[in-house]
Amino acid sequence: MPWDEALAEWQDVLGDERVSVDTPVVERYARTTQPHGTTPRGVLYPRSVEEVQAVVRIAARHETPLYPISCGKNWGYGDACAPRDGAMIVDLRRMDRILEINPELGYAVIEPGVTQQQLYERVRVEAPGFWMDSTGAGPHASIVGNVLERGFGHTPYGDHVRTSCGMEIVLADGRVLNTGFGHFQESRAARVYPYGVGPVLDGLFTQSNLGIVTKLCVWLYPAPEAFRLFFIKVDREEQVYPLMEALRPLRMRGILNSAVHIGNDLRVITSLRRYPWDATGGKTPLPESVRESLRRETGLGAWNASGALMGTRSQVRGAVRELKKAVGPLGKLVFVDDRKLAWGKRAVMLLNKFGLGRVLAKQLEALEPNYGLLKGIPTDAPLLGAQWRLRTTGPVPLDPLEAGCGLIWFSPVLPMRAEDVKRLLECVTPLFYARGFDLPVTFTLLNERSMVAILNLAFDKSVPEDIEQASACYQEVTTALKEAGYPPYRLTPEGMPLWTDPGDSFWYAAQKIKSALDPQNILAPGRYVP
Amino acid sequence: MPWDEALAEWQDVLGDERVSVDTPVVERYARTTQPHGTTPRGVLYPRSVEEVQAVVRIAARHETPLYPISCGKNWGYGDACAPRDGAMIVDLRRMDRILEINPELGYAVIEPGVTQQQLYERVRVEAPGFWMDSTGAGPHASIVGNVLERGFGHTPYGDHVRTSCGMEIVLADGRVLNTGFGHFQESRAARVYPYGVGPVLDGLFTQSNLGIVTKLCVWLYPAPEAFRLFFIKVDREEQVYPLMEALRPLRMRGILNSAVHIGNDLRVITSLRRYPWDATGGKTPLPESVRESLRRETGLGAWNASGALMGTRSQVRGAVRELKKAVGPLGKLVFVDDRKLAWGKRAVMLLNKFGLGRVLAKQLEALEPNYGLLKGIPTDAPLLGAQWRLRTTGPVPLDPLEAGCGLIWFSPVLPMRAEDVKRLLECVTPLFYARGFDLPVTFTLLNERSMVAILNLAFDKSVPEDIEQASACYQEVTTALKEAGYPPYRLTPEGMPLWTDPGDSFWYAAQKIKSALDPQNILAPGRYVP
Repeated sequence: MPWDEALAEWQDVLGDERVSVDTPVVERYARTTQPHGTTPRGVLYPRSVEEVQAVVRIAARHETPLYPISCGKNWGYGDACAPRDGAMIVDLRRMDRILEINPELGYAVIEPGVTQQQLYERVRVEAPGFWMDSTGAGPHASIVGNVLERGFGHTPYGDHVRTSCGMEIVLADGRVLNTGFGHFQESRAARVYPYGVGPVLDGLFTQSNLGIVTKLCVWLYPAPEAFRLFFIKVDREEQVYPLMEALRPLRMRGILNSAVHIGNDLRVITSLRRYPWDATGGKTPLPESVRESLRRETGLGAWNASGALMGTRSQVRGAVRELKKAVGPLGKLVFVDDRKLAWGKRAVMLLNKFGLGRVLAKQLEALEPNYGLLKGIPTDAPLLGAQWRLRTTGPVPLDPLEAGCGLIWFSPVLPMRAEDVKRLLECVTPLFYARGFDLPVTFTLLNERSMVAILNLAFDKSVPEDIEQASACYQEVTTALKEAGYPPYRLTPEGMPLWTDPGDSFWYAAQKIKSALDPQNILAPGRYVP
Repeated sequence: MPWDEALAEWQDVLGDERVSVDTPVVERYARTTQPHGTTPRGVLYPRSVEEVQAVVRIAARHETPLYPISCGKNWGYGDACAPRDGAMIVDLRRMDRILEINPELGYAVIEPGVTQQQLYERVRVEAPGFWMDSTGAGPHASIVGNVLERGFGHTPYGDHVRTSCGMEIVLADGRVLNTGFGHFQESRAARVYPYGVGPVLDGLFTQSNLGIVTKLCVWLYPAPEAFRLFFIKVDREEQVYPLMEALRPLRMRGILNSAVHIGNDLRVITSLRRYPWDATGGKTPLPESVRESLRRETGLGAWNASGALMGTRSQVRGAVRELKKAVGPLGKLVFVDDRKLAWGKRAVMLLNKFGLGRVLAKQLEALEPNYGLLKGIPTDAPLLGAQWRLRTTGPVPLDPLEAGCGLIWFSPVLPMRAEDVKRLLECVTPLFYARGFDLPVTFTLLNERSMVAILNLAFDKSVPEDIEQASACYQEVTTALKEAGYPPYRLTPEGMPLWTDPGDSFWYAAQKIKSALDPQNILAPGRYVP
């Protein structure tokens, strides 16, 4: 009964066409790359903060759970799925206005439906002195959704918690809350100083279920005078350790200021092609000999690091020198700038005429999206790895949900230190192999002291055995990470109960806050807060 | 009755000598540089987190309000005073252990009683590759207390919200909460990655009354290879505007990475001497002619900016070039490094022999503490301005409370833009003058886009007329700042009710959280959260 009444009231507010409980729609939102998803009750599409307020008030009146999403592209971490069945999805994709772009102070104020591509294009035109910072979530992913999940970008503005400044939030009772200085009438510093006065509430609304964020201010990175991508390749597995030790002081001292990815061969191979089912006779994981030949074919190292040096011309020149000194002796170090990239493309075209240049072409293919990301240009490339274990050989859509990809991203955080890299890899690698999975992994430097390891568990959702193995692997790896002391920076809905022990004072406090702000547990029940 | 019982129980836990309700002690804690203070009931001195837990549980049992302070040196912002009379002060100065200094990852874990001088000295010995970041709060001020007030430092690690990583907190029910990854057993990244998983709670415990922070991890700044202080002087008042516009892009592009102070002549004059009561015949504010002659005497500009360039040798060389290009045409630009400073001191000694060198000596006197602060060396110098308006001419203690100084610091935040500087100064200056006060002011760049204006209202606490005028001025300036849209980054106890309208959703949410975590309102009632 409460649902019927709530639906009728939502229809009053939003009109019929923005309330849907149709089976095909519901099924679309129930899709996931995880082993198991959840099925919502239906979907609402508010277009304004007032409509979100009305939606929430109706839900509170009838005690019907809501699950807000920005665009629903939380691939690898649960997509658009709520932790529990039966919630009404509040899809904010139609709140897609860019409310302000300030080309003097360098910021943009956006709604949750604004995609990376959309803001990227507007910033290029309206604030040409600045770059948007882009995450690897793809051109059509929401910026707000990703910031709230604390995803990371690639320029020196990649820590989005640090480079956001002020939220507008609809609370469970329909009130609108502005954080920072934003709640003071006429406050002139609301977009430039993040903390306001009194407690800082912003952090509460990331990775939680305490409110619906309807506006966010993100800072833009001042376009640097000079930019050079670097690429470091080491041939042997164990060379990753001295590499990590060499990178830490560079990052600490601010010589490296972009995200730096250190990926193994598999991480790059899986983004360039699918699993060689023929060459392996269907066996998994990838036999060492096949892996080696694929590695050779693409000209890759056992580990491959990339990042960019950006700043004034003289800063970049100095940084090039420091990088050469520190990592030059450890492996092969290459620098790429706009000119060199253009040259490389011309060379490939030329070589192709003679049936040559395959390795170079592959390298460019792997390089170019990353080059763009480091300049804040969105790309779908990081999603390609999701197709690795598909059985089909034909072309599939890029959207991993439409392609039928299975994908789980583990994201343990570790100190930027060789000993932790070693400990982590020794802990997780055998568990992936034992279940027949390869382990494509990237370590990304997140700040001056820590990095996240993104472990890719790719599987084929059309193969029940794959789903079962992935699910078991997920549990085993999670247990191992917990014991080893490497919690993830982000969770899948399936992982939430595994990491949120309500006996722990932290989750106890989070629960208390949840009860205070949302006593009926209307908003995203079970999401992060237990 | 509840007090008697509570006192007896506290004595059981802490022993007689760490529970005090003696009048002289109570009176000492009731002192303030503000126009009006509050008087506590007594003082408790726990030495460990377990004792803090016991203290809080006893308070909860008897519903007696507590007011935790770290060292009580919140000068200019309320000192050790609670917003209301009759609270039991929980003075944490005896929890003064430095629990860890990590010379590899560059951090320190400290208790609330640890002072700036204490950590500074330990870091110098145990992590010589790093600098502590120091605020202007003086050598004997608590680091934790200042971080919780969101005070700022001077090196590139000056935004302490960004450079702290994990708190231990005693909640009002006696539970111990660890933020970030700190609540997971064995978590290895707790000191290097600040956000953990799930909501970020840390911000809640700054500028609030939601818990007692008993441990904090602060990151240390990697000692730069090169360091050069710069000093910019412009002669005319209105030259501050183009200076601000020139500094913004430098700060945005990361060429300036330290705190940069832009102070008017009065800010420097007031830190070098007291008010010239004789020369002015007792009149206030300072007549323009006297101000000009004092300015000439000290070799100051109408506005004086200082900061430091730090990084690798080539970064600093490049930054020097950029700074010269951008601000060189606007005023006089001087660079100082260790060698030049030593040389200047020798020159002064030499000139002194001939009765010369007074201006240079004054300049060095003003310069040296700032030079140290930019290297993370604590100094009392910023407190000297508090003595400006004392009637006495003899020497007084440096502690503004012991000297009988009246001091209110206003701290409005504004976008880093000439138009806001102009608007702010036009708004507040006449209000200070009308009440007979001078306006020493410093603008400090806080991040890439904003700055804080520290307005010094100095008066003599032994003169009732002064107190009355200061109190009226405080109200008037606060009202004006509110209307103009420049809320402060930090409040005095007197200012809290003026800025925290419970009808505002922000304060409503903060109140809800307060009721959830501290339903009896035991901890610091009235502090920030209304």
